[in-house]
Amino acid sequence: MTTGEPLRRGVGSTQQTVRRQNLALVLREIAEGEPVSRAGVAQRTGLTRGTVSSLVEELIAGELVTELAAARGTTGRPASPLQLNRAGPAGLGIEIGVDEVAACVVDLAGTVRARRSTPSDHRTREPTAGLDRAADLAADVVAEAGLPVEGAGVALPGVVGRDGVLQRAPNLPRWVDVAVDAELAARLGLPVDVGNEADLAAAAELWFGDAPTDFVHVSGGIGVGGGIVLGGELFRGPGGRAGELGHLVVDPDGPVCSCGGRGCLEQLAGQPALLAAAGVADVGDLLRSPGPAVAVAGRALGVALAGVVNLVDVPTVVLGGLYARLGAPLAVAVTAELRERVPSRTDLRVRLSAPDTGGALRAAAGLVVRRRLRQP
Amino acid sequence: MTTGEPLRRGVGSTQQTVRRQNLALVLREIAEGEPVSRAGVAQRTGLTRGTVSSLVEELIAGELVTELAAARGTTGRPASPLQLNRAGPAGLGIEIGVDEVAACVVDLAGTVRARRSTPSDHRTREPTAGLDRAADLAADVVAEAGLPVEGAGVALPGVVGRDGVLQRAPNLPRWVDVAVDAELAARLGLPVDVGNEADLAAAAELWFGDAPTDFVHVSGGIGVGGGIVLGGELFRGPGGRAGELGHLVVDPDGPVCSCGGRGCLEQLAGQPALLAAAGVADVGDLLRSPGPAVAVAGRALGVALAGVVNLVDVPTVVLGGLYARLGAPLAVAVTAELRERVPSRTDLRVRLSAPDTGGALRAAAGLVVRRRLRQP
Repeated sequence: MTTGEPLRRGVGSTQQTVRRQNLALVLREIAEGEPVSRAGVAQRTGLTRGTVSSLVEELIAGELVTELAAARGTTGRPASPLQLNRAGPAGLGIEIGVDEVAACVVDLAGTVRARRSTPSDHRTREPTAGLDRAADLAADVVAEAGLPVEGAGVALPGVVGRDGVLQRAPNLPRWVDVAVDAELAARLGLPVDVGNEADLAAAAELWFGDAPTDFVHVSGGIGVGGGIVLGGELFRGPGGRAGELGHLVVDPDGPVCSCGGRGCLEQLAGQPALLAAAGVADVGDLLRSPGPAVAVAGRALGVALAGVVNLVDVPTVVLGGLYARLGAPLAVAVTAELRERVPSRTDLRVRLSAPDTGGALRAAAGLVVRRRLRQP
Repeated sequence: MTTGEPLRRGVGSTQQTVRRQNLALVLREIAEGEPVSRAGVAQRTGLTRGTVSSLVEELIAGELVTELAAARGTTGRPASPLQLNRAGPAGLGIEIGVDEVAACVVDLAGTVRARRSTPSDHRTREPTAGLDRAADLAADVVAEAGLPVEGAGVALPGVVGRDGVLQRAPNLPRWVDVAVDAELAARLGLPVDVGNEADLAAAAELWFGDAPTDFVHVSGGIGVGGGIVLGGELFRGPGGRAGELGHLVVDPDGPVCSCGGRGCLEQLAGQPALLAAAGVADVGDLLRSPGPAVAVAGRALGVALAGVVNLVDVPTVVLGGLYARLGAPLAVAVTAELRERVPSRTDLRVRLSAPDTGGALRAAAGLVVRRRLRQP
């Protein structure tokens, strides 16, 4: 019946396309269910045993999957459990912070296999010098991991265009329109993907933490970063810059912010403001005796998050970075402020990021291996 | 090749399904291109002339499409232009406001064919009495239009659950958990759909105005309503309550709001606050001599909209309701405040809703006919 044709345009149904799709399907089942037998994969995908075996051989040859020693299955027949290849293609993560650079390597299963960081003040240092430092550190961590790294992800503290250019970073005035992707690709000899560090930190909660599929992540540091996840996907908005929690206006007449605005959350609940509120000089002292800093942060975060709840309707807040380290007292203060600001929403939950989530750095490396798992 | 099968589950490919899909495809082409010839439809859909003719006959028999008198086409052959049937299935719209009820009928092309409104103070009146009043008015307007109305859409000034129940309306304390859909369906003998009036007002900008596909609509009245449209779709958020601009915190220590919060936009830039700022008693006086009301509204809206820009990254603001009536001076004031609050975003545009968009009431009626066009 010819009338059906136009509706199928673009679906693509050549044998090769179907095989590629099924290869990804089988790999996903192994990643989610590992260790899992060929029979288990066949059952969950609906593919025949023969097809699964052929696809698994291809995945093993491509070093994406390994076969464990045969174990006695429940039916008495020998089962050969499959799992992701820990020696297979790996991802390099780089995070360029305000005053630090960090790098890590994750394997195909997302486990961090090597991690290093070093001070590097990008407020004073030229971007090219910062990029050199990042590339050196990356080379060290790749050598340490000893895995076949096939790409890099980079977390940046600013606005990243869809073209991979860091347009601006409010706390790094020297970093304007820097093509970080191209610069690092040239230094590393690897394909490079870049992302906003707050977006990647939110992705880390989803990929490596126990966050639900709808939440907002707000992370304290020298700046305040935010990321919104809806339906298990990062919500980037039409221009790719959504979720800028740090620049929500909390006090319309408050202090001038690095963004040019006034009274932004970052000015009231960023690390410098909290150190000042506690009357201490560094983060260690702040964590030992936070004093009024918890109340100050709780109120500012509560006001800003009430806005997020009203605008985006997310039920869960995850506190990360410095906020997670301030711990339960801050979560209690934020919850109380939110209840007062949005009394009709009794379903709101405030939780702390798990300490081992790995943050933006791990998620940056995760970009590489997650793409490989989707496109084997 | 059996491996392709699992990927096609759920696509549906019986002849009947394909015919229904093509029927909708042809109807959409006619709706968007009217008046349009059968040949034009065939060209744009990729369907054969024979298939198009058969589908068009079905649409004509179903009273969704009419054929205009044959005109001489450019090729010399007689073309019979098709258009939506203005006497075909129509939609009833009802808006239950704070102190008014309104009803209209739109035809299949979305044109308002009859419209009435009457005062009805739902702050003091019981919900059942308000629903009776709405149903009476609806009956009058349906009789006046003389079209075959096949369903109703209702705009409500509160939180509407996905089950059609009005959960609460901040300015109507008596309206708690009212099953407006069932109540009105029983009174009208029609299927009824309900929606939040601010969401529907945003939809009206998209459907009947000239709004782009990504914008935020903020509408002034006794309450302040907001709706966010992303990619041409209403952004409702995980719980269906996104876009509550009226309750963004503009002044954390400001006056208590009907929502239980404090210093919400609605308290600072709602109609009562603007009347007070201007020192006048009614909207007519406010529009004649707004005095400081424009500056007050401009500042509060600018602060709230800076939050929307930072969180959702929409480039366009559409001012509706009372704000549209305050006109260009308010748009200028909001633009200035936004520029100061989000200086990096030079691409932001503030515009006024066109006066003939029809607002939430027309969009409520539009729900009915738009569904019919999608499911002929």
